[in-house]
Amino acid sequence: MGKGEQTRREIVDRAMVLSTTLGLEALSLGTLAEDLKLSKSGLFAHFKSKETLQVAVVQEAIDRFTKHVVLPALSRARGEPRVRALMENWFDWVGAERGCFFMALAQEFDDRPGAVHDLLVASQKEWRATLAKAARLAVEEGHFRADLDPEQFAFEVKGIGLVYHEAFKLLADPKALPRAKAAFETVLAAARSKKGR
Amino acid sequence: MGKGEQTRREIVDRAMVLSTTLGLEALSLGTLAEDLKLSKSGLFAHFKSKETLQVAVVQEAIDRFTKHVVLPALSRARGEPRVRALMENWFDWVGAERGCFFMALAQEFDDRPGAVHDLLVASQKEWRATLAKAARLAVEEGHFRADLDPEQFAFEVKGIGLVYHEAFKLLADPKALPRAKAAFETVLAAARSKKGR
Repeated sequence: MGKGEQTRREIVDRAMVLSTTLGLEALSLGTLAEDLKLSKSGLFAHFKSKETLQVAVVQEAIDRFTKHVVLPALSRARGEPRVRALMENWFDWVGAERGCFFMALAQEFDDRPGAVHDLLVASQKEWRATLAKAARLAVEEGHFRADLDPEQFAFEVKGIGLVYHEAFKLLADPKALPRAKAAFETVLAAARSKKGR
Repeated sequence: MGKGEQTRREIVDRAMVLSTTLGLEALSLGTLAEDLKLSKSGLFAHFKSKETLQVAVVQEAIDRFTKHVVLPALSRARGEPRVRALMENWFDWVGAERGCFFMALAQEFDDRPGAVHDLLVASQKEWRATLAKAARLAVEEGHFRADLDPEQFAFEVKGIGLVYHEAFKLLADPKALPRAKAAFETVLAAARSKKGR
């Protein structure tokens, strides 16, 4: 990794840390340069505008999500094992120290049009599509019933991730994780084919 | 309503409108005074600090939620009809033009300690308790099975409200409402006593 690329990564990493508490909109290139002991022109060499930086931060979060949540699940067997791995990895992600980057961002950008909003929406649609595809494969494998609507399944399990995040992060509910897991088992049971596997 | 009370209401109403797009933290007493063509001292007569105003805005949102979502449902028959009314009123609330005030706020304040955070947490615990109580009454009425965990039921239907909000507001998914309703029917079916009503 060259010096330029390394600096770029440091900027994005630091911007990500700052944005999880302040929000992404409150990021200022000036403050960030100061925080990183970079000249403003040094920072501008990497990011021409706040929006370019914000997009890079969201893209980095997407890459980390793909690496920690999606890819390890894709190595699991098609069908229910993969669906289960996706959800378990997601629960781990949401329950990590700082909570879910995307959920914080969703509220900040749901009524702010622009490149950040568009990338965020695309990433959330992609995540729902990934869950739906895993459910579709589980139907094909005979793990889930043939008349299951995979999109509906994805919608329902996404709700479990969201309420887990709220219970864990906002309400500091000690039962957040067992409740989320129990909710997921209920949705799984309803999705399974009657003859079982 | 006296003049003072009327001015106070105007301030809170306007602060609520501004905060739904900007966030509650971005509210400034100065900007708000200017926006309302009030002197800063006139505004300070009602709210000594930004936090006092923020708390008043959250309290107003709680009052509106109680009036539009909770109270009309309490006039419905105990049991499944009341559970259903709570959820239908909530779907209406979430799907209203500006989306849900509380969900936007949750992400903004989940890591900002203080009076706003505490009131927000209390309001969300109260809402979950209201849903759980309605489910408990549905068990007592014989509409829901005797071994249902009302807290788990409340957790699960809260997730449906959250994912409905995301699908409706962030993803502009045209199927958001039918999907939310279908998810709710699935949770209801799982909650019902086997003999039915």
